[in-house]
Amino acid sequence: MDAEPGGEPLAVDGDSPESAVRRMIAVDAMGGDHAPAEIVAGAIAAARDLRVRVALTGRPGQLRPLLARLPAAADVYIEAAEESVAMHEGALASWRRPRSSIAVACQLVRRGQAGAVVSAGSTGAIVATAKLRLRLLAGVTRPALAVVLPTQPTPTLLIDAGAIADPKPELFVQFAQLGVAYAEIAFGIAEPRVGLLTIGSEPGKGNKLAKRAHELLDTDQPHGGMPMSFAGNVEGSDLLAGKVDVIVTDGFTGNVALKTLEGTARFAADQLREVLGGSRAARVGALLQRRGLRELGERFDAETYGGAALLGLEGTVVIAHGAVRARGAAAACRLAAELTERHITERIKERLSPSRGGHFLRRAERGATGTNPVGGR
Amino acid sequence: MDAEPGGEPLAVDGDSPESAVRRMIAVDAMGGDHAPAEIVAGAIAAARDLRVRVALTGRPGQLRPLLARLPAAADVYIEAAEESVAMHEGALASWRRPRSSIAVACQLVRRGQAGAVVSAGSTGAIVATAKLRLRLLAGVTRPALAVVLPTQPTPTLLIDAGAIADPKPELFVQFAQLGVAYAEIAFGIAEPRVGLLTIGSEPGKGNKLAKRAHELLDTDQPHGGMPMSFAGNVEGSDLLAGKVDVIVTDGFTGNVALKTLEGTARFAADQLREVLGGSRAARVGALLQRRGLRELGERFDAETYGGAALLGLEGTVVIAHGAVRARGAAAACRLAAELTERHITERIKERLSPSRGGHFLRRAERGATGTNPVGGR
Repeated sequence: MDAEPGGEPLAVDGDSPESAVRRMIAVDAMGGDHAPAEIVAGAIAAARDLRVRVALTGRPGQLRPLLARLPAAADVYIEAAEESVAMHEGALASWRRPRSSIAVACQLVRRGQAGAVVSAGSTGAIVATAKLRLRLLAGVTRPALAVVLPTQPTPTLLIDAGAIADPKPELFVQFAQLGVAYAEIAFGIAEPRVGLLTIGSEPGKGNKLAKRAHELLDTDQPHGGMPMSFAGNVEGSDLLAGKVDVIVTDGFTGNVALKTLEGTARFAADQLREVLGGSRAARVGALLQRRGLRELGERFDAETYGGAALLGLEGTVVIAHGAVRARGAAAACRLAAELTERHITERIKERLSPSRGGHFLRRAERGATGTNPVGGR
Repeated sequence: MDAEPGGEPLAVDGDSPESAVRRMIAVDAMGGDHAPAEIVAGAIAAARDLRVRVALTGRPGQLRPLLARLPAAADVYIEAAEESVAMHEGALASWRRPRSSIAVACQLVRRGQAGAVVSAGSTGAIVATAKLRLRLLAGVTRPALAVVLPTQPTPTLLIDAGAIADPKPELFVQFAQLGVAYAEIAFGIAEPRVGLLTIGSEPGKGNKLAKRAHELLDTDQPHGGMPMSFAGNVEGSDLLAGKVDVIVTDGFTGNVALKTLEGTARFAADQLREVLGGSRAARVGALLQRRGLRELGERFDAETYGGAALLGLEGTVVIAHGAVRARGAAAACRLAAELTERHITERIKERLSPSRGGHFLRRAERGATGTNPVGGR
């Protein structure tokens, strides 16, 4: 059970070696408020239910007893990582610890032994480590954080949700391209509509950054090849309205908006709980609504939707909520498995790579714009 | 009923002329999705219930029939304004129309005939008009928008919620001073705690603007005189957590956060409604929770909390939600009456004016800082 992934991935069940790599998920067993116990339990559940293999990175002395207590799982390995990054630590700590559990997980992907990384550690540390340890995709200048919002009937992607606090306006076009690729693949939407998060519906509304981004997104409409459908401005009140499929913003605003959304949903749930437990009649009422209330709770529950994806790197990185328990860790593994299974990295490459006909180079060739935001680093 | 306020305010009930001005509220009768009918009805209710007098600004031909249909209200006047600014129009339209209903309302305050302005029109247009028509308080460089968030046991003030999209970091200190004065007066809090909205709890977290603002807020702690208690960073998830009394941010982030909060609360309420109407049992359950659910709805209801205040001007300006009906318009009048009654403008002056010992000048005198953000324009 303790066998570590060797230099070559094992091909099982007639898999090609390439598809075997894809099916191997490197899970940072030491990251998260409830690591390692809950993370390990979630990873094992994912390995059992999803036909994926899992490499747990962390201290073998802590992980082995956890594996021993759980039902046998042939496809779970341990990859030793003696260090870890605490939840309150940021980018600096991650640079200083090349053998941290998150760094080792990234190295497994870098060395071609795993297709994806899953971590519930500090977002800042994961982003910094992934940027350092994984290659950027050609045409991408910085990776961005994409979060799925629970709109109906299809979800909405918010990007960037916190990787880049001060992006240049040109990066917004890259966020849009990454987001469109994600929405096509993960949501199965044929031509995702892109909205710009700002403070009014008219084109001139916003701060300088958003106004310049609007100009770039609006004039960058391609007329062939990889389409991108820019739908204009959206506001904070539209995050859950399902007006567009992808909402682009800078990482500062995106992170504030995401946490505001989470905080408000939690506040509303607390208030509701108070109302439902407020009197005997109300409690009886709640019994009658059991099923509906359970479903309502799940729609906003971090345990069910997996987490955020860091897009733009050679390899899939899923960042689970720091507070996840086993079910949330398993959901993050499921998201990582789905994204790799559906070739997210390759699809993003297609969209961005000049040689495959990404529209930016063609625009630059046409001389339509002086800047080529994704043409090279 | 149609008598317009003359050059001198009428002193009634033994009021001093100054207190009679304070008790006169100029209501932009043409601003809002449901103007003028609902706004007029709300203003009349406020005049009746609050012992305030109301000057309705707008087209007399439209307003007179509305007044005639409603119960007689001796303290409601009409001030003719032939133009108005539509809900979708912004700053430009307001500059071009000096006789718009919002401009005329501001002029009543400027001329000393009213103590406050209430409007449910376009926020951009109101801010632009008020900046143009009202004087800035000494020491204030730009007015900021303050919104009350429904935290328990005391509310939380968010400032700036959308007046200045690209503020200099020095303005954050002014936002804090305005917000502290508001929280002292409106919430009755002795030493309001100020938090900076950003994307992490540590001092170094945020975009460049927030990081610089943190430095200014942190080093500007006064050691005597008007106290300001800076409690450090807060995140989007803290907006409704009641950790601090005043949350400062730039107008872009503040507006996105506020609308995200409103949108999420509405989304949660819609989901809840779906659950409660989902089955016969659930509907019976909802009957048993009637009272609690009604209270829950009211806590997030724009109709009950009045609106946002534009702070930093000679005169109180309350901006009601564009969608308010009569109850919401009356609540906005109540907020305006309370703020003028409690001398908000004078209290802010005390806090900011160098001659009265505001702490900034003293800091500058001590040579503690090279910049004096509120010392003069």
